[in-house]
Amino acid sequence: MGTFRPVRFVDVALEGQFWRERLETVLTKTIPSQHVQLGRHGILEALTLPNPPPPLRFPRNEHNFTVQVFWDSDVGKWIEAASYALSHRRDAAIEAKIEAITDDLEIAQAADGYLNCWYLQREPDKRWTNLRDNHELYNLGHLLEGGIAYFLATGRRRLLGILERYVEHVRKTFGPEPGQKRGYDGHQEIELALVKLYRLTGERRHLDLAAYFIDERGRKPHYFDQEAVDRGEKPTDFWAKSYEYNQSHKPVREQTKVVGHAVRAMYMFSAMADLAAELNDESLKRACEVLWADVMASKIYITSGLGPAAANEGFTEDYDLPNDTAYAETCASVALIFWAQRMLHLDLDGNYADMLEQALFNNALGGLSRDGEHYFYSNPLDSDGRHSRWAWHTCPCCTMNASRLIASVGGYFVSASDDAVAFHLYGGISTEVDLAGGKVLLRETSAYPWSGSIRIEVTPQAPFDFTVKLRIPGWAGGAEVSVNGEPVEVAVSVENGYLSVSRLWQAGDRIALELPMPAERIYAHPLVKENVGRVALKRGPLVYCVEETDNPGGRVQQLQLPQDASIDVEERRDLFDGIVVLAADARRLTDAGWDQSLYRTRPPEAQPARLTAVPYYLWNNREKGSMQVWISEG
Amino acid sequence: MGTFRPVRFVDVALEGQFWRERLETVLTKTIPSQHVQLGRHGILEALTLPNPPPPLRFPRNEHNFTVQVFWDSDVGKWIEAASYALSHRRDAAIEAKIEAITDDLEIAQAADGYLNCWYLQREPDKRWTNLRDNHELYNLGHLLEGGIAYFLATGRRRLLGILERYVEHVRKTFGPEPGQKRGYDGHQEIELALVKLYRLTGERRHLDLAAYFIDERGRKPHYFDQEAVDRGEKPTDFWAKSYEYNQSHKPVREQTKVVGHAVRAMYMFSAMADLAAELNDESLKRACEVLWADVMASKIYITSGLGPAAANEGFTEDYDLPNDTAYAETCASVALIFWAQRMLHLDLDGNYADMLEQALFNNALGGLSRDGEHYFYSNPLDSDGRHSRWAWHTCPCCTMNASRLIASVGGYFVSASDDAVAFHLYGGISTEVDLAGGKVLLRETSAYPWSGSIRIEVTPQAPFDFTVKLRIPGWAGGAEVSVNGEPVEVAVSVENGYLSVSRLWQAGDRIALELPMPAERIYAHPLVKENVGRVALKRGPLVYCVEETDNPGGRVQQLQLPQDASIDVEERRDLFDGIVVLAADARRLTDAGWDQSLYRTRPPEAQPARLTAVPYYLWNNREKGSMQVWISEG
Repeated sequence: MGTFRPVRFVDVALEGQFWRERLETVLTKTIPSQHVQLGRHGILEALTLPNPPPPLRFPRNEHNFTVQVFWDSDVGKWIEAASYALSHRRDAAIEAKIEAITDDLEIAQAADGYLNCWYLQREPDKRWTNLRDNHELYNLGHLLEGGIAYFLATGRRRLLGILERYVEHVRKTFGPEPGQKRGYDGHQEIELALVKLYRLTGERRHLDLAAYFIDERGRKPHYFDQEAVDRGEKPTDFWAKSYEYNQSHKPVREQTKVVGHAVRAMYMFSAMADLAAELNDESLKRACEVLWADVMASKIYITSGLGPAAANEGFTEDYDLPNDTAYAETCASVALIFWAQRMLHLDLDGNYADMLEQALFNNALGGLSRDGEHYFYSNPLDSDGRHSRWAWHTCPCCTMNASRLIASVGGYFVSASDDAVAFHLYGGISTEVDLAGGKVLLRETSAYPWSGSIRIEVTPQAPFDFTVKLRIPGWAGGAEVSVNGEPVEVAVSVENGYLSVSRLWQAGDRIALELPMPAERIYAHPLVKENVGRVALKRGPLVYCVEETDNPGGRVQQLQLPQDASIDVEERRDLFDGIVVLAADARRLTDAGWDQSLYRTRPPEAQPARLTAVPYYLWNNREKGSMQVWISEG
Repeated sequence: MGTFRPVRFVDVALEGQFWRERLETVLTKTIPSQHVQLGRHGILEALTLPNPPPPLRFPRNEHNFTVQVFWDSDVGKWIEAASYALSHRRDAAIEAKIEAITDDLEIAQAADGYLNCWYLQREPDKRWTNLRDNHELYNLGHLLEGGIAYFLATGRRRLLGILERYVEHVRKTFGPEPGQKRGYDGHQEIELALVKLYRLTGERRHLDLAAYFIDERGRKPHYFDQEAVDRGEKPTDFWAKSYEYNQSHKPVREQTKVVGHAVRAMYMFSAMADLAAELNDESLKRACEVLWADVMASKIYITSGLGPAAANEGFTEDYDLPNDTAYAETCASVALIFWAQRMLHLDLDGNYADMLEQALFNNALGGLSRDGEHYFYSNPLDSDGRHSRWAWHTCPCCTMNASRLIASVGGYFVSASDDAVAFHLYGGISTEVDLAGGKVLLRETSAYPWSGSIRIEVTPQAPFDFTVKLRIPGWAGGAEVSVNGEPVEVAVSVENGYLSVSRLWQAGDRIALELPMPAERIYAHPLVKENVGRVALKRGPLVYCVEETDNPGGRVQQLQLPQDASIDVEERRDLFDGIVVLAADARRLTDAGWDQSLYRTRPPEAQPARLTAVPYYLWNNREKGSMQVWISEG
């Protein structure tokens, strides 16, 4: 069936209400407001060189570090998100803003192509002296992704050209040849950006540079050791204590456990999967598979949040998944989506699409508020009401990861090979794909994720043989499929999570897919200690939570859901333009009769209570209050 | 009955096995090894002036702070603990060490009496410029407590004299008079030390200075605001954001909620209770009572740990008592014992003694290892096995709080008034008290806390009338008391937690007290969200925990204790020289059948398992492993 390639988001029209609302919000609210915030917080100003630099807004910490070193990346990510917006519809005001940024970068760029505004402005003699901490290549990576997106949206090559010159400087600077630095960045990102540049330009040297950075990582003698010595520091004084923090503790192909900073890990794995595909590198593919299995077996929240700990913004021990202190950075789930999409296209295995979907509909989507202008950076699964969305963040990385994801979300729905199309997600899209046998117009109609009733019109320009592959999610038992009213035997035709319908398709053909969506109780592995005796509710791809505003009478943590309570599925048109909630007869532990005492020998009393759960991604969009995903199953 | 005064520890012989073991360990292991550690970590060396100061061992953090500013206090606390040891038995080697420290301090002291080794050595022109952060008076407080203890143990007044001269300098510097600074310390401690100095010397001015510091705290204009402005800083740049951190957000009599740094709060409340007693200040007493009620109603762990959060080493919201991230600093529980003892002597209310006992036998005692040379700083109630004892700590405050507490623990057992003695704790002691009617020898014999069978011999020199008060702990239902074999009606004679036996006592009189000690299930208030559906086990004053070494087969968090399981009380002579464990037929959730998955729709299976729980204070003294206090009651 050949290799599947994602159909680009520009070629996928989002027609379903669910994604139209998110996309419109991002285009009209999020992206414009993010530019305002970049200005307000001095991040745009920092591009203006030469300039007597203003005092640091974020003073260096005891490790001599300030988040300002990666401000360039925030600009790059905004350009990327804004360019995706332009791909949906051009906008002179946004384009003028990107052109103004381009002006600044053009002026700032050194004669040799170097272009890092932090170093150029504040430490011009120290460039390339601390890749471990200071994100120089990471910044370039995000700018480059922005430049590529802007070129694709507008055809304007000036920004991309500036960044390509910087890439050439980087290529000269880094590599295994004499006189080159055998370095790579402490925060992986440039690798996947270089693959994008390769795919855009077809220039092999970009792929080679990406492969160099991946292959060199973790080799001995360790580059970050040498670099520290060159700075007059002891390598062992590295604040994070271990190179596991940035996944350079060993060569990537020898890594079998997912460790360290979660976003760095996910970006690196995405690049590894890219390189595995482009270079047909089985060892990289195998490494990805081992690491994927590790994270799925013991290191991911039910919401697809990754990285429980704030200390390293990352991974700790197997099964260490605390709920209320979960870091589960929005960026990490967005990056997991990148990785999952790349893994999916290596094998078309529905397990990857299941996880892509789970990350998208839960932790990632949760990162952006309903109004499009507030954010979660960390995504706990339990809150006593103190956790709430930010209007901005000291480290605004997550804000633009949310907007760039949603602005390009159409790109995750459908893939095509020479003779097949594959539906990964549902929710109301139309697209035209170009197969070897001809063009095919596809229109998928559904109220997904609220309903699993999916209709697909398949309209080839002229009849021809090809295959339509439909993802049958892992959570969907008892799926039913028919073509033009004729049932398809699902049990025999599903392979790796995809049902294949191969036939002579002609205009007017209709597929009906029914994915049953009962409310489900989900239990965690008993080594996840916080969840012993607890249950989560899920329906379709959506993880649910109880939020105080829907469950008045005290904190939601006082609710207990009896094991035998049936879970009702209820449409609620009054909430968020129409959603599905889950509800059950439960009980609430009462705080009456405790008489100012904290502990007693008698258990708390309970009274009947109706429990109402809403999708996790929607929480904290109404009144502040407590929230819980894992409910005591008393 | 008049005012009760604690019988000093020097007058109480510890004869029971439980406390003899702890005391011997502290005298022979802890105190000598702490001196070694103080030397090893540069803390003793920092007293040697003048001296070109070595580089900082703990570089300043982004708030320009280093823990080295309170090294003097660590020395002071060690002197105090060591002096208590000398009160038990003189030791020339230890005395020589204290004399050597005294030599250093004598040399270091400035002509005007000032004596803070950090400032004298490193920032001589900056003394008294940052009381908010830099612990100058706190350091003096601990040194002064050390000097007093050393004088009481040895009669040597040289160290105390040095510190009295420093106190005189402080008195001149601080106060409401023109030319004085209207300041007080960011870390309360000197106040209670000054009360001790007053009690030792009878010199009223020390009490007045303590009262000044307490009364001035939190007044407007705020001293820390003015001080920050004088340093050229914005007061609002205070790293902790709020003066709640150091309980100076409002005058102490207006404080009704316990906030901020837990140790500071407890030391302050101890001083407030001292002043309430010495000055007969009802408003201070009332403030203490309100604050006591607040902490007991919503802010204390079952182990008597205080302050859930690492961020402020202190209090957060009501009912915020997470188990695995509990900070619950050892120092805070030791300081709670100080406060409880002072409150107890205001009213002789057994509630205070109950909490004193609970803090002592659980969080505080847990802070010191069985071998006497390892420590807990934070005391979580749940661990996946990563938490373990330190040989020393960046901030060694807890180490000497453990040793000074245990070295003087005899002082918490008995109090006397003119015509009564009161037993607060049991465990095997003998003491002679001097009542108005004559001397009385008291010998209490028991295997407490393992057994509630207590025998007391009351031996007056000659027969006379007085009252023996016996604390009947709040946890002890169905206590029985007899005198010379004649039952005493407990129900009618217990008041405020104490049973009073007033009679003509004569040599040979015997009291028998039986405190039933069944295993108890304890439940938390349902607003403590982590403990919903969970139960803790307690027997007598001891909170129990399950530790992996006693419950092999995986993490203890996989255990569930059925609601109807009976809890067996078992003597275990093979453990820790003989302890009592609790055991029950429980079940263990198995991780078989999960096939590398983290989540599934079927609950985990369970298999029968015998659950064995040991006293919390003993955990992490054997193999490393998981531990849990609040067990799922599946």
